[in-house]
Amino acid sequence: MDQNGKLSFTSDYTKGAHPDILKRLTETNMMKTPGYGLDEISESARNRIREACGVKDAVVEFLVGGTQANAVVIDAFLKSYQGVIAAETGHISTHEAGAIEANGHKVLTLPHRNGKLSADLVRKYLEGYYADANHEHMVMPGMVYLSHPTEYGTLYAKEELQEFRKICDTYGISLYVDGARLAYALACPENDISIKDLAALCDVFYIGGTKCGALFGEAVVIPDPEKIPRFFTIIKQHGALLAKGRLLGLQFDELFKNGLYMKIGSPAIRAAERIRKALKEKGYRQCFDSPTNQIFCVMDDEALEKLAEKVEYGFWEKYDEKHTVIRLATDWGTTEEEVSGLINIL
Amino acid sequence: MDQNGKLSFTSDYTKGAHPDILKRLTETNMMKTPGYGLDEISESARNRIREACGVKDAVVEFLVGGTQANAVVIDAFLKSYQGVIAAETGHISTHEAGAIEANGHKVLTLPHRNGKLSADLVRKYLEGYYADANHEHMVMPGMVYLSHPTEYGTLYAKEELQEFRKICDTYGISLYVDGARLAYALACPENDISIKDLAALCDVFYIGGTKCGALFGEAVVIPDPEKIPRFFTIIKQHGALLAKGRLLGLQFDELFKNGLYMKIGSPAIRAAERIRKALKEKGYRQCFDSPTNQIFCVMDDEALEKLAEKVEYGFWEKYDEKHTVIRLATDWGTTEEEVSGLINIL
Amino acid sequence: MDQNGKLSFTSDYTKGAHPDILKRLTETNMMKTPGYGLDEISESARNRIREACGVKDAVVEFLVGGTQANAVVIDAFLKSYQGVIAAETGHISTHEAGAIEANGHKVLTLPHRNGKLSADLVRKYLEGYYADANHEHMVMPGMVYLSHPTEYGTLYAKEELQEFRKICDTYGISLYVDGARLAYALACPENDISIKDLAALCDVFYIGGTKCGALFGEAVVIPDPEKIPRFFTIIKQHGALLAKGRLLGLQFDELFKNGLYMKIGSPAIRAAERIRKALKEKGYRQCFDSPTNQIFCVMDDEALEKLAEKVEYGFWEKYDEKHTVIRLATDWGTTEEEVSGLINIL
Amino acid sequence: MDQNGKLSFTSDYTKGAHPDILKRLTETNMMKTPGYGLDEISESARNRIREACGVKDAVVEFLVGGTQANAVVIDAFLKSYQGVIAAETGHISTHEAGAIEANGHKVLTLPHRNGKLSADLVRKYLEGYYADANHEHMVMPGMVYLSHPTEYGTLYAKEELQEFRKICDTYGISLYVDGARLAYALACPENDISIKDLAALCDVFYIGGTKCGALFGEAVVIPDPEKIPRFFTIIKQHGALLAKGRLLGLQFDELFKNGLYMKIGSPAIRAAERIRKALKEKGYRQCFDSPTNQIFCVMDDEALEKLAEKVEYGFWEKYDEKHTVIRLATDWGTTEEEVSGLINIL
Repeated sequence: MDQNGKLSFTSDYTKGAHPDILKRLTETNMMKTPGYGLDEISESARNRIREACGVKDAVVEFLVGGTQANAVVIDAFLKSYQGVIAAETGHISTHEAGAIEANGHKVLTLPHRNGKLSADLVRKYLEGYYADANHEHMVMPGMVYLSHPTEYGTLYAKEELQEFRKICDTYGISLYVDGARLAYALACPENDISIKDLAALCDVFYIGGTKCGALFGEAVVIPDPEKIPRFFTIIKQHGALLAKGRLLGLQFDELFKNGLYMKIGSPAIRAAERIRKALKEKGYRQCFDSPTNQIFCVMDDEALEKLAEKVEYGFWEKYDEKHTVIRLATDWGTTEEEVSGLINIL
Repeated sequence: MDQNGKLSFTSDYTKGAHPDILKRLTETNMMKTPGYGLDEISESARNRIREACGVKDAVVEFLVGGTQANAVVIDAFLKSYQGVIAAETGHISTHEAGAIEANGHKVLTLPHRNGKLSADLVRKYLEGYYADANHEHMVMPGMVYLSHPTEYGTLYAKEELQEFRKICDTYGISLYVDGARLAYALACPENDISIKDLAALCDVFYIGGTKCGALFGEAVVIPDPEKIPRFFTIIKQHGALLAKGRLLGLQFDELFKNGLYMKIGSPAIRAAERIRKALKEKGYRQCFDSPTNQIFCVMDDEALEKLAEKVEYGFWEKYDEKHTVIRLATDWGTTEEEVSGLINIL
Repeated sequence: MDQNGKLSFTSDYTKGAHPDILKRLTETNMMKTPGYGLDEISESARNRIREACGVKDAVVEFLVGGTQANAVVIDAFLKSYQGVIAAETGHISTHEAGAIEANGHKVLTLPHRNGKLSADLVRKYLEGYYADANHEHMVMPGMVYLSHPTEYGTLYAKEELQEFRKICDTYGISLYVDGARLAYALACPENDISIKDLAALCDVFYIGGTKCGALFGEAVVIPDPEKIPRFFTIIKQHGALLAKGRLLGLQFDELFKNGLYMKIGSPAIRAAERIRKALKEKGYRQCFDSPTNQIFCVMDDEALEKLAEKVEYGFWEKYDEKHTVIRLATDWGTTEEEVSGLINIL
Repeated sequence: MDQNGKLSFTSDYTKGAHPDILKRLTETNMMKTPGYGLDEISESARNRIREACGVKDAVVEFLVGGTQANAVVIDAFLKSYQGVIAAETGHISTHEAGAIEANGHKVLTLPHRNGKLSADLVRKYLEGYYADANHEHMVMPGMVYLSHPTEYGTLYAKEELQEFRKICDTYGISLYVDGARLAYALACPENDISIKDLAALCDVFYIGGTKCGALFGEAVVIPDPEKIPRFFTIIKQHGALLAKGRLLGLQFDELFKNGLYMKIGSPAIRAAERIRKALKEKGYRQCFDSPTNQIFCVMDDEALEKLAEKVEYGFWEKYDEKHTVIRLATDWGTTEEEVSGLINIL
């Protein structure tokens, strides 16, 4: 329950961290370590992630949040005159207050389907760009940005990711996966993309911590260590270097101890499954076929008003005069009781 | 002691947080709160800081680190064509990897004296700028940046700060104080600038958390709430908005409970005093008359080699062929035993 | 005829300047004048433009080209966290290589109709923005960008412009008209927007020279001189200040002598009218109802191949497998003979 | 004489262009050519410059002005996190209104000697940078910027340029020469750096037109065509692509016809020599040993007042209470009569 005594399903970043993380934080509190992620704990975390990725010398750097990670990574990979291709629903296209443009890069948006970018559309876009006689007057596409899961909770198939890889190879551009909610993909039976796949197919991706059991933090992985020679300085230049870097290190060290990250999303997925099933049985209309921890549902506005008395949900958008799309998000800490409570109210 | 069994005086951000902060973090871990600092804990922290400032409706926003705070604040206050005046030793001039320039603003450096900027020099610079027939071809100065304490551990006098205020009023530019180590000024008998003074004299300043007892975090204070209308969006645009903002809020809520912040620096100041006295007695040469938690000392390179076996210190710069300037930093958690240990070794 | 002996209708910037301009250039060549537009010729040009605008103290500055004018003006008017609303076909959205984003500003694109932005759509966009609970996480719209004539040769009605003004007033944002081809609007019977109207309704607009009889140059007009206090410095900062500013001044001094600018587009409009009529008679399909100096026509690819032997045209886009949209552009110097030649070939 | 009937020696950009340029402009006025420098005249100019450089496939692009050239070139060559080393008197350090910083790059200034950067100082700076334990927190130097002649009219020796080349090779950074006044170096007996030397030793340089006989324009030369793959797009992105690019092309085509550029500065150098000799004879004190077209002279303020009645000069800086440093600049069009007039007045 949240502060108002309501059940809360507004988002997956309303709580603190997995207990193991808090414990480690307490144990290590008075240790003295070098700053800026040059400490042993951060190095241990890096090594665990490298192992999970199956890439021995991958660059792994920890950043504090998702918008920051996107801004730093995209600015590091793009040349000054390049832009990044994204779905019009991509987080960088909508809810980052222009952080990508603030670094001088255009977000080149394409239509989405259930939050996903289509490889076909991207290929056509790139073909069109190079076929255009005026393309040297236009922003050069330099990267493809995907979210997995997407902002709509949907998933790419490994085959799709391979397709994107091929396209990026053809055009010599980078492939970047934003894994803000990656743990919820990994815990989802429908998902066939592993962390190793991401490391094998992407030029860069990040493993989300903030929404997946950490207090905060995202782990950026660049499989090829030659690619961005001064990534540390780039991070610092963006005001994104945490002085006590070990705080990030220790969170990921815990998340990647004994494969915790691979299963931490499971309670959220089970909870979401139960809610989806209940919604279906009770005749509610769900919007996208999203198998992860976000549920999008069309609600009658009157029914919604009643729901709001007992449940906190996320407003998504007006559907029509009398209906609203809401989002219900579960997380790693969602309990069976909370789900039962919600289903009873529904 | 640090990981190598040595005494460590390298910097003031090697440890975790004050125990009260860790305790609160643990207590509130499973609470569900709105994100982005819109929660009750952050609001409580804001109110405590407003009270400490004596300004009821001041804007108070929490950022994660010092470089980030400088980049966001300076970009928020400057017009696109303005630069910021700073000492050539100012943190923004040297060790922020060009974060200010990355946002398009030139750092206009002036010579320092013991890390301090002179009001006289700033006035002359501004007079010179406006007297120059070509000044419209030059970067317009739009802000004065001071650190208190400075990067050299020295302090401004209240009178000096008032002088800067007058100059800024004359030229219609902003006055900004970087308080990364503010707690060590506040705990220092030589200091006559209170937080209320900063709130009364600055357009904006930040209260350092990272180096002053927090895990991380800096509290930016803008006394006049009309000044920067969309500060929240500016923070987001810089990738500087923490999703679980309450983590910052609760740290400052603890730091400003019962005036903790005003006294948290005291152990550091006492420790530094003892070390300075010991150094003097033993004939070591100290560089600046810095009364806070940083001690700068010229060491014979041979003696230094021995010291390095038992003590970790900060390298500052080569003094000459055979001597080196080192920095010893104490912090809120430095113990009497550590100090005694160091003095024995010296 | 162009260098290959073909008739050329590719664009309206293939020739040099109106003879009066060349003459003046020659007469004044060895004059010595102060640089940067501080000379008497530039001042004379400014005064003529102020008179044409009916605004005595308007700021008038001369820039070299259109993309430069857009980048400088938009950066000058927007706050660092604001974006500019434009049609998805707007020049700033497509063919300026990301010049707006390079200055940190997002182009917020809306669907077009025949190259035009709809006031209704803009109003809905702004309403939606402020109604969105997350709008502080999004780029704040700070300006509406229109082209008159548009990139498709179409025109806004004065009533529409007044509507945009109202919306901008409601939301406290700026209205900017890109007049790269303004002379062709002014010479067009369908047009009911005068330069005085632009000065009365816009916060800023520019009067195109490059495509309208000058060698190069655009005159930016800011009716309210208080609005952008250091516009000169902003221009310099963008590398957009011409050393021998009088070269720009003298071109606009000639263009605004005896109302030349108001009628210089007439030959282009007459020529375009004849071509449009001929196309219609011969059964060609025209794309938009564009009354100015650009004609967009769907051509059978076989016919096009033949045409290409004798005429240079602008490729616009593929229409389908067997058809192509081409652009024919007339200009201030298009002769009746050229038009007759083209019609014969058609 | 200038507009006030005074002799004018204020600067070298007060007049129009060499007569050959005006003639060509008139002859080609009604030609129709493709835009953006893709025309035959521009190509001819490129080839003449390539020949003068002795580099067959050098990239040659024409920009409108010096600040623009500096901003575009430096942004093209630097990585986003790099800065450019320059003398504190370098044009980019002082009089470009922060154009370099506006693109995100810090100007790393070093002390000058008579406007010149010392290779030794640069080497020490780079050594110091890499020796500094914190250098990854600092702006990485990525280029050395020199002006030849310097802003003080002084010249580098070929040997010095070779020294800079070695340093740049050692550190893997670029060497850039700003040749705004290059023609005055080339016409100067003291100069031993040819255009071929620049092409052999620099990564990029520009050949100044604006101050050397053109109406406007600078020719950027990048000897290695692989270095900056999308330079055209970078130019466009900076608003620096001239629509009627042939206007630039034809000016440089004339300037490099029959080696005009190599000798166009001669009248200025002869004039400056006469003035310098006269000043010396009459006991005036000259400031730097500058052998090119700029003369810096300390004047008694009373004498200066008298001089000002008949001569326009450039104010440089106050020397002391009673003296002022002035600049007298000659140019390609300075006549013997003007010089005699000045000497008489002196």
